[in-house]
Amino acid sequence: MNLAIEQALRAIENGQAPFGCVLVKDGRVIARAHNTVWHDTDPTAHAEINALRTACHQLKTIDLSGTELYTTCEPCPMCYTAAHWARVSRIIFGARIEDARNAGFNELPVSNETLNRYNPAPPELVPGFMEQECRRLFELWKQLGSGRPY
Amino acid sequence: MNLAIEQALRAIENGQAPFGCVLVKDGRVIARAHNTVWHDTDPTAHAEINALRTACHQLKTIDLSGTELYTTCEPCPMCYTAAHWARVSRIIFGARIEDARNAGFNELPVSNETLNRYNPAPPELVPGFMEQECRRLFELWKQLGSGRPY
Repeated sequence: MNLAIEQALRAIENGQAPFGCVLVKDGRVIARAHNTVWHDTDPTAHAEINALRTACHQLKTIDLSGTELYTTCEPCPMCYTAAHWARVSRIIFGARIEDARNAGFNELPVSNETLNRYNPAPPELVPGFMEQECRRLFELWKQLGSGRPY
Repeated sequence: MNLAIEQALRAIENGQAPFGCVLVKDGRVIARAHNTVWHDTDPTAHAEINALRTACHQLKTIDLSGTELYTTCEPCPMCYTAAHWARVSRIIFGARIEDARNAGFNELPVSNETLNRYNPAPPELVPGFMEQECRRLFELWKQLGSGRPY
């Protein structure tokens, strides 16, 4: 998660939204990314989508079974479903969608109707990992970054 | 929708999953795309994501307010949420997620918990437009295409 936070800090420095993540497989980091929506003029360029695309491209597979995604904030339904399509096993996150909403993002969490209904292999969601450190990213973004939600 | 079906037919010809869509703004087609997941080794390369990325890139904006998305199949939560982020106004679809599930895709519809809860501007979902023609794409894909869901 420290590497994910490092990515989010890089996003803040570069005028992007304060989200970062890493993908880990067999104890090895296979991708790290931050949000690049403004930079790329691409509303789908969330940290998680960027990391999934990079990992699949580099490993030449669309099947990331056994991979864990560490992300500084609870994923939005776009990113959660993208992780489902890539067969990510587990998503470990710090801050809550509620924190992103409070910071101005028009966010919703993945719904209870969706969770655990994919068969096989819905990505498991693990909340609250380094939550305080991850929540602090929103403050840093307002103080030092663009403060522009999207 | 005929242009979206044309895209889906192109996807089938090219060994891709049988989904196509177009984005329309002010009566003008601003992007057309089909699924390229296998081609790009990218599990996020659904027709809708591809079209949104193309339109935003070409129009140099992440705000597609007022745009309508015609898609051959009800969007998955990834694509629906991507359309939300791009501020698409309306999504008009033909076949149902249930049809995609029956064809072998590990799909779920956008949940009722999510629909209409984004504020402002959740994309409106309009079902059943040229439904029979769109459902037929799954049969064509099994007969003439790869028949590989992803």
